[in-house]
Amino acid sequence: MSRAKKNRAESIDPQSIPKAVVNRLSLYLRELQHVVRSGRETTSSSRLGSRLGFTDAQVRKDLAYFGQFGHPGVGYRCQELIEAIRRILGTDLGWPVALIGVGNLGRALLGYRGFNRQGFRITAAFDVEQAKVGAQIEGVEVYHLDQLEQVLLKHAIRVAVITVPATAAQEVADRLVDCGIEGVVNFAPVTISLPDSVSLVGVDLAIELEQITFSVVNRTNSR
Amino acid sequence: MSRAKKNRAESIDPQSIPKAVVNRLSLYLRELQHVVRSGRETTSSSRLGSRLGFTDAQVRKDLAYFGQFGHPGVGYRCQELIEAIRRILGTDLGWPVALIGVGNLGRALLGYRGFNRQGFRITAAFDVEQAKVGAQIEGVEVYHLDQLEQVLLKHAIRVAVITVPATAAQEVADRLVDCGIEGVVNFAPVTISLPDSVSLVGVDLAIELEQITFSVVNRTNSR
Repeated sequence: MSRAKKNRAESIDPQSIPKAVVNRLSLYLRELQHVVRSGRETTSSSRLGSRLGFTDAQVRKDLAYFGQFGHPGVGYRCQELIEAIRRILGTDLGWPVALIGVGNLGRALLGYRGFNRQGFRITAAFDVEQAKVGAQIEGVEVYHLDQLEQVLLKHAIRVAVITVPATAAQEVADRLVDCGIEGVVNFAPVTISLPDSVSLVGVDLAIELEQITFSVVNRTNSR
Repeated sequence: MSRAKKNRAESIDPQSIPKAVVNRLSLYLRELQHVVRSGRETTSSSRLGSRLGFTDAQVRKDLAYFGQFGHPGVGYRCQELIEAIRRILGTDLGWPVALIGVGNLGRALLGYRGFNRQGFRITAAFDVEQAKVGAQIEGVEVYHLDQLEQVLLKHAIRVAVITVPATAAQEVADRLVDCGIEGVVNFAPVTISLPDSVSLVGVDLAIELEQITFSVVNRTNSR
């Protein structure tokens, strides 16, 4: 355990790695998983890049932050690179996740297959509505928010997903921080603030639609 | 109308603009909206950048793709820059959106306030389950997928959101293309293929969690 930790720390200086590179690691991982499912065992930086719209140089440069993964005359061995990227992202460890807010979005995420596939398991859900507390949704127990601290401890949960209404998001985030949470993904459509010691990613589901309208509008005009 | 289109086309050469820049425009827009809600009328590239973790030079360079927005001695007038960015992204036009797949995720998106706020209105929902067809959810009518073409035409819908199970996503996407859709946001946890003439963004909700675990793992090791 301590040896694995040491290898991890030796191979990465996280301060030197741009966020966009880490984001692209996730995309490479998805594409490699897709290649493996389609029955191939190896791939190349140009194949990997072309499916995702990046140059082969970009792919090689991104991966070079973390080590040397290609084999001469072979390219990348998919399964080997999948395991390396999962180790870099930390998802090989398997993460129990808390979900706060069992509305429609919370329920959707409880049933979202894409989490399990990548090494995340929503282990406990929380809400303040008594009618929801004690229910099992998609096999996950719903607790009252007042039980947050003890349940996080019991399941060794270090990361949480916020799916409460925008008006409650900051208060919930503060409670998570008080309970020692280390990372938060916020799906509520509002910006929240956390101490620098806690990792935070805000998800804004309208951004993807804006990227689409940008390209539709400009595609139309260029005809 | 034609004059507005002309201005749009003159000011932007979309081929020359990296996707990451367009993505950051959305982030600037959110932050500017936040500044306005907090009661301030102007901001600067360094203020705008610091809240988002970018340098002021990055902010200025990104915006320079689209024109000159700062005022000497003032900085950015927030409302003016908000309107400019919405015009660039095309969201000032107001977009009716079709949603395909009224499961948990579909229902969540039908109630997601973040869409309306940015100029999107889900106008029609589709499913293949007869029990859902004819229902009104969050004020949106659910049609059978067989009515896709006529409903898209009737409401002049050019962009769609896919929230069906992974196994049905490609088939639904193909049907949307046959009906003349111009842009698709795919929330199904699977990669789909579309002709180059149709804009496509895939949303993978696990990617944000991976970014969190990367920083939690590396933060822990660096202690």
